[in-house]
Amino acid sequence: MLKVGIIGVGTVGASVANILKENSDIIEARCGKKIVPVMGIVRDIYRDRGVDLTLSDNIDDVLENDEIDVVIELMGGVDEPFKVVKKALENGKAVVTANKALLAYHRYALQDIAGSLPIGFEASVAGGIPIIKALREGLSANHIESIKGIMNGTCNFILTKMMNEDVEFKDVLDEAQKLGYAEADPTFDVGGFDAAHKLLILASIAYGIHANPEDILIEGIENINSEDIFFAKEFGYNIKHLTIAKKCPNKKVELRAHAALIPSSQMLAKVDDVMNGISVIGDRVGETMYYGPGAGGDATASAVIADLIDIARAGQSSPMLGFKRDLEGGGFTLLSSDEIETKYYMRVKVLDEIGVLTKITSILGDFGISINSFLQKPDKKDQNCATLLFSTHKCKEINIQNAMKELAKLSTCKEKPVMIRIED
Amino acid sequence: MLKVGIIGVGTVGASVANILKENSDIIEARCGKKIVPVMGIVRDIYRDRGVDLTLSDNIDDVLENDEIDVVIELMGGVDEPFKVVKKALENGKAVVTANKALLAYHRYALQDIAGSLPIGFEASVAGGIPIIKALREGLSANHIESIKGIMNGTCNFILTKMMNEDVEFKDVLDEAQKLGYAEADPTFDVGGFDAAHKLLILASIAYGIHANPEDILIEGIENINSEDIFFAKEFGYNIKHLTIAKKCPNKKVELRAHAALIPSSQMLAKVDDVMNGISVIGDRVGETMYYGPGAGGDATASAVIADLIDIARAGQSSPMLGFKRDLEGGGFTLLSSDEIETKYYMRVKVLDEIGVLTKITSILGDFGISINSFLQKPDKKDQNCATLLFSTHKCKEINIQNAMKELAKLSTCKEKPVMIRIED
Repeated sequence: MLKVGIIGVGTVGASVANILKENSDIIEARCGKKIVPVMGIVRDIYRDRGVDLTLSDNIDDVLENDEIDVVIELMGGVDEPFKVVKKALENGKAVVTANKALLAYHRYALQDIAGSLPIGFEASVAGGIPIIKALREGLSANHIESIKGIMNGTCNFILTKMMNEDVEFKDVLDEAQKLGYAEADPTFDVGGFDAAHKLLILASIAYGIHANPEDILIEGIENINSEDIFFAKEFGYNIKHLTIAKKCPNKKVELRAHAALIPSSQMLAKVDDVMNGISVIGDRVGETMYYGPGAGGDATASAVIADLIDIARAGQSSPMLGFKRDLEGGGFTLLSSDEIETKYYMRVKVLDEIGVLTKITSILGDFGISINSFLQKPDKKDQNCATLLFSTHKCKEINIQNAMKELAKLSTCKEKPVMIRIED
Repeated sequence: MLKVGIIGVGTVGASVANILKENSDIIEARCGKKIVPVMGIVRDIYRDRGVDLTLSDNIDDVLENDEIDVVIELMGGVDEPFKVVKKALENGKAVVTANKALLAYHRYALQDIAGSLPIGFEASVAGGIPIIKALREGLSANHIESIKGIMNGTCNFILTKMMNEDVEFKDVLDEAQKLGYAEADPTFDVGGFDAAHKLLILASIAYGIHANPEDILIEGIENINSEDIFFAKEFGYNIKHLTIAKKCPNKKVELRAHAALIPSSQMLAKVDDVMNGISVIGDRVGETMYYGPGAGGDATASAVIADLIDIARAGQSSPMLGFKRDLEGGGFTLLSSDEIETKYYMRVKVLDEIGVLTKITSILGDFGISINSFLQKPDKKDQNCATLLFSTHKCKEINIQNAMKELAKLSTCKEKPVMIRIED
């Protein structure tokens, strides 16, 4: 028998306890043992959580409980769960966590503390999709060329709505909040931070790279409007919030999370609504893609319990972050965001007067940026203005950023220019 | 160090040897050991295979070689590889195989013989896609509701061409053969047998069910023509060769491999050309989908080496077929094909005369079959004839089969009616 304590019995924690009970037949047949939740830790033990589980508000009832083999950490946050997981490991307990923020900051420290004790974290990335396992074990023969993921359901719900209906960001965000797909403070999701945390976890497994959220390019979807959607449709693109890890020359890795135009023929472009999808290109296998629900109590609990079953079957069978030792000759390091090279789409609202286009193309030319496609639209509200929508050929991020600054300085430029990267 | 012997150094075997050498940096970092191919067994040791590997035509140079830890079986066939794998296991060697036919017949026998020795077979289903691992480990908390897979690249290439271009089966098959996507004798692929073998492997992992290819419904794509494609497009379907495992009431499981009309909005409908895709619905996680290359030397070798890395890391961490013990109260058994219930599409070529439609609908009515949508087209070649294309509401397979027999007996029916199942 494997006995588990659950720290944090919210939606996911309650699902874990319920599934362990309701699916005990198949779980026991698959791992050869009973997996039993013996204690749940909550702040308010008097609130009904719809779950048949002994509750306590004293965390030591799990951490110092000799009976408990595995601690499931579902608290949220970073510093507090770090202390809790550390103590659990020091007390000889295996850990399963769904906490992406914790891992985005402390995954290597936890790996060191754990030693041979298992830490499962399948649920921390893309909910019910077994992407950690696929990357760490299924594709382990490959040098990973790139990972491109749609890993935030809130962003994807909003962008899908904007693509399919003629609605603006703020209105869809309101709807998403009403449906429970977005938090009251949606910044963490729509600002790209949640997806970036997940990316850092995958990047460690793919490349063994150490990086923190502060080190990488993170943007959200707040600036996207219906003009961008119009351009995307016109040129055969879909707009998605993507996380990207890409191998570059000289043992560098690009890591970034931002909105992107992707060709609508790609499989990833078909990942709609709150669903998640991750495309991984390995040097030998080519492209594989993983699709499924990225959130939700039962879907996330499915991943938590998969980790429990692995532990019940064999303990830790793979190294936590996929590497048993460093790469010979040193590992990968992070490419500076300035050095990223890709194609760009830009939206610039200008006074519709003679010479304005010349000024803009001349600024772009100064930074070595050449235009690939171009659309000019009269402004809906202001008849003196026009909106210029264009895409560029490949150029460096630093050049686009500098060109944007110069464009913003033009007196004829009526709004801060908006840029979206293009990933073909 | 893990030393491996490769029995059968064709396309996949050569890829395995080459990748083990060329990607040794990442492989060694990931599993903490060198994995070294020390011997390859071939029929003709004088033929150059583009691989730096000692070759022998004496299989005992691997099977009786005390130095070798893992035997990779890439021979093809059923009886001969069974003897070889059995001997390898008896000699205490772990086994990795890509041989779906071997497993379709002997997976339970091999599991018994292996005991605690690992048998890896990720490469046997859907090539480079880590679907075995996803199903056996990633989704292990779930009762599996259904598996629907596009698992034969040859069929998918042909059907994709037929959907996108106005071409007939025979012409595309010729092209597929020229491109190397179809064998000289294509029956195994286009007849559905290859996909059915893979289905049986997945069904064992999902349901613990014992079944052989002879026990299940297997059909190919040979009868599909451009009229069927026309109907599919008209009603928003795509035609795919699907393998289906579905949980039914009373601990029964449906297993079948055949062409099917699926709504073109489904993710599976977007799996085109030679690619494979598998949708799995778990009772808790909902739908997850896995996409990637189902064949090819490097993609298949990627899966073979993933198994080797698992073995190097930890030995066998999961039970071979996913179950450590039988389900309490007995496991799943196979639903008789007659009892399958689904919707159907039918094509009937008839003499275009008064009363023929009445005769046909009356026969269908006799078997309790009701029509959902209907299209009548004049025959292109024969102006006395018409082609009737229609879909039915849900009914039992036995009723459709019997109705087809009755329709075929009608003097006004000019060709054997063709039926394709509809999977919504």
